[in-house]
Amino acid sequence: MAIPHRLLLGPGPSPPHPRVLQAQAQPLLGHLDPAFLEIMNETQTMLRSVLQTRNAYTLPVSGTGMAGMECVVANLIKPAERMVVCSAGFFGDRMANIAQRAGANVTVVSGEWGDCFDLNKIEEALKNRRPKVLGIVHAETSTGVLQPIDQLGELCHRYEALLAVDAVTSLATAPLDVDGWQIDALYSGTQKGLGCPPGLAPVTFSERAVEKIQQRKTLVQSYYLDVVELMKYWGSDRAYHHTAPISSVYALQEGLKIVLEEGLQPRWDRHRQNWATLKAGLQGMGLNYLTKEHCQLPALSAVKIPDGVDDMTVRKRLLTEFGIEIGGGLGQFKGKLWRIGLMGYGSTAENVHTLLSALKNCLS
Amino acid sequence: MAIPHRLLLGPGPSPPHPRVLQAQAQPLLGHLDPAFLEIMNETQTMLRSVLQTRNAYTLPVSGTGMAGMECVVANLIKPAERMVVCSAGFFGDRMANIAQRAGANVTVVSGEWGDCFDLNKIEEALKNRRPKVLGIVHAETSTGVLQPIDQLGELCHRYEALLAVDAVTSLATAPLDVDGWQIDALYSGTQKGLGCPPGLAPVTFSERAVEKIQQRKTLVQSYYLDVVELMKYWGSDRAYHHTAPISSVYALQEGLKIVLEEGLQPRWDRHRQNWATLKAGLQGMGLNYLTKEHCQLPALSAVKIPDGVDDMTVRKRLLTEFGIEIGGGLGQFKGKLWRIGLMGYGSTAENVHTLLSALKNCLS
Repeated sequence: MAIPHRLLLGPGPSPPHPRVLQAQAQPLLGHLDPAFLEIMNETQTMLRSVLQTRNAYTLPVSGTGMAGMECVVANLIKPAERMVVCSAGFFGDRMANIAQRAGANVTVVSGEWGDCFDLNKIEEALKNRRPKVLGIVHAETSTGVLQPIDQLGELCHRYEALLAVDAVTSLATAPLDVDGWQIDALYSGTQKGLGCPPGLAPVTFSERAVEKIQQRKTLVQSYYLDVVELMKYWGSDRAYHHTAPISSVYALQEGLKIVLEEGLQPRWDRHRQNWATLKAGLQGMGLNYLTKEHCQLPALSAVKIPDGVDDMTVRKRLLTEFGIEIGGGLGQFKGKLWRIGLMGYGSTAENVHTLLSALKNCLS
Repeated sequence: MAIPHRLLLGPGPSPPHPRVLQAQAQPLLGHLDPAFLEIMNETQTMLRSVLQTRNAYTLPVSGTGMAGMECVVANLIKPAERMVVCSAGFFGDRMANIAQRAGANVTVVSGEWGDCFDLNKIEEALKNRRPKVLGIVHAETSTGVLQPIDQLGELCHRYEALLAVDAVTSLATAPLDVDGWQIDALYSGTQKGLGCPPGLAPVTFSERAVEKIQQRKTLVQSYYLDVVELMKYWGSDRAYHHTAPISSVYALQEGLKIVLEEGLQPRWDRHRQNWATLKAGLQGMGLNYLTKEHCQLPALSAVKIPDGVDDMTVRKRLLTEFGIEIGGGLGQFKGKLWRIGLMGYGSTAENVHTLLSALKNCLS
């Protein structure tokens, strides 16, 4: 196989650490092999550290981040239950779509793409709709917005709603404290801040969420994503549920080790620092952020394509002449936005300078 | 990482070909990179060859075989529609469970574990229930049964039902002809006959099935598994749906190449031949098959544990002293059955002799 070399600086996947790729090439164990069960245990323990949670129900779902979204929504929501989804981007909209498919009675609270939600607006929705679940995106990959959610769990609980959070792009790139912030359910992906290939979706459920799930009378619509069934395998029963993606778990284990070797705070600092350098460089070239100043995401910069510049011409040149991938806009911003990711192993000063110099070349 | 060496001769995962593991260690491409799109095209073309189909809707779902099962069922079935599931094993039961969760009005036609279904019995169910979909397991991994299905598509169509087939263990280990047998929907896994790690589920849908899906007025309950949405990414639109598990697709591409280099008929012959050697050896040691003589599966031998022999003692010795994994029984056969798999790269004469000699040692 001749795979061309790419520097992955788009919205994901990010470039995996070489140790992670090496882990993926290790020979397989069976999914019930005692040696693999140990790897599972260690992976869960490290996941809890990275998520800052003591939740027993913490495991990687065998699918990408999108499967994590479905897992969280389908387990929390019973048919016809009210759910409020705060959406100011592509992934908020996606969550509303998935909630509808799960049979929820969904109310979408819309916000401007590029800005975050005000707590008062969310409280209003909680007060008026009294939903069982409130869903929100912590790091909106379509707009580069970091939504402050540290006070949101408490607010939701005051209105007897559970808080479900999309942390696909924030996990291991920005502060995230599942227990401290009283988050009830959260999903992420492996292919961004964790620096692993795509394929697994870490999820975690609080005791409060697990209690609601265990009291369900109706079956979760998906067996594959039924977290009570999954815990029979990832918990102490070790009962067969499905054949776990062994290699992907190896990769995740290695990725998590690397995160914890670096430490959460130094990792967040590194992401913020390289992002600041990138931002200064992009602004120096006259590029403007879509994202409002007060809620910019260190892992992903969403910048407006200057008038008269063709999206695909530039991205194609970056890819073919410089081997660099950046992302385009989604939804209403297709053709109008570039999304530049500095995530996990990809967030380095060297990569920032490589990109800035290549982009300068393409724009001159 | 210190992964102990195991010879995987259980019900799956099978030992992947070294070339496949190597492919998994290749650097990542983005999921919309032109070079990756080429890999997707080639993978789909090879999948069609291995499945013997011209179905446009042929792709690997980003989950394990169980996700493939949910994909097929959830797309084909609308809430309250009648579905007949023929079940004589763990995976037949699983399909019925999943169909119920998808809202189907399910009738289970039960058969004896270890035997296959008679066409007359199936025809009776089609006649009495007039289901929209009939689901059946081609290779029942819990019992080692190969269900003859070459006439079943025609029969289903006579009663205006679609035929959905579980081919998780039969794909690339035994004859399978999707178009020739008029199968409407089929799912498999990568971790058995294809000799890849677990993580992807090849699925295919006939034109007849696609027509039914396209006429749906209700949304498929899963967005992640909605095959019309998936085809916007795997088809010519190349629209973002989810971040494809890049490394797993590399592995599948390499696995499919290896299958086609060997050729389907030689591969089926090899599986049958090594299975025959294993069977003679097991029977020579006084072990009896659960599976009836006329429907034994070449990829998997299900043999009864002799009276007075403890399941776990033997399997633990095989694993720790000889580094060999075989499987135990599922459901009603827990503790009563061994399941020995010879699949993909694992189906060799050498592996048969290694296992027989180790097993003899453990039983003497």
